[in-house]
Amino acid sequence: MHEPAIQTTTSLPMAEAEERLRNAFREEGFGVLTEVDVQSVLADRIGADVGPYRILGVCNPQLAFRALRLWRGFGLIAPCNVALYDVGEHRVVIAVDPAEVPEVQGNSELYQVAQQASGGISRAVHSLDDT
Amino acid sequence: MHEPAIQTTTSLPMAEAEERLRNAFREEGFGVLTEVDVQSVLADRIGADVGPYRILGVCNPQLAFRALRLWRGFGLIAPCNVALYDVGEHRVVIAVDPAEVPEVQGNSELYQVAQQASGGISRAVHSLDDT
Repeated sequence: MHEPAIQTTTSLPMAEAEERLRNAFREEGFGVLTEVDVQSVLADRIGADVGPYRILGVCNPQLAFRALRLWRGFGLIAPCNVALYDVGEHRVVIAVDPAEVPEVQGNSELYQVAQQASGGISRAVHSLDDT
Repeated sequence: MHEPAIQTTTSLPMAEAEERLRNAFREEGFGVLTEVDVQSVLADRIGADVGPYRILGVCNPQLAFRALRLWRGFGLIAPCNVALYDVGEHRVVIAVDPAEVPEVQGNSELYQVAQQASGGISRAVHSLDDT
């Protein structure tokens, strides 16, 4: 399966992993614009338990503004989803890599903006790498 | 530019277009889990005005649950972004087509779920087509 995503695995507990992730995104200039507690949403709406699972929508306002001027449909991929969930004894973090999205690859200026965003997202996610 | 997206254009005013879109998604079993007022976020954070621009994050809980059992990283593309913005005198609605996301195309069961989601998103978006 093709997976154009940025991901890592950490042994940190869920709450600590999320806090570190939020701080890392802030340091890279990304705000968390949306959040979804998937476990709670699916429990409420269909009575299913998928275990701890959170999705943050992150966005760097400067880069988003540049991207929107190049492609008005950029809201299709912003905010970028960052999912955080349990797999066995570990937490997995997986994020959209905006530079791998087909829509941006056909426009070289837009691709440069997406690469900058990709760099920031990658540094934030990999700041949780187990050392 | 490759655009694996579902889109339409309407002459409805912004507020009415959004209300009809929300109702159409509800009828298709999709909830609006997140919303971003891009115009307000960018004005607050960097003093830029991009005009009316809203992004809704939509999700069908039943389909999301099935997808998560097939691919735990499904949070990468759920909730799906639906962007609504002005272009000249019209409103454009553009949504992610989950069946066109590379990650799901390598898994036939997951692809079937994504196709169902795609059908619902497409019907909701195209309910705004100008007649």
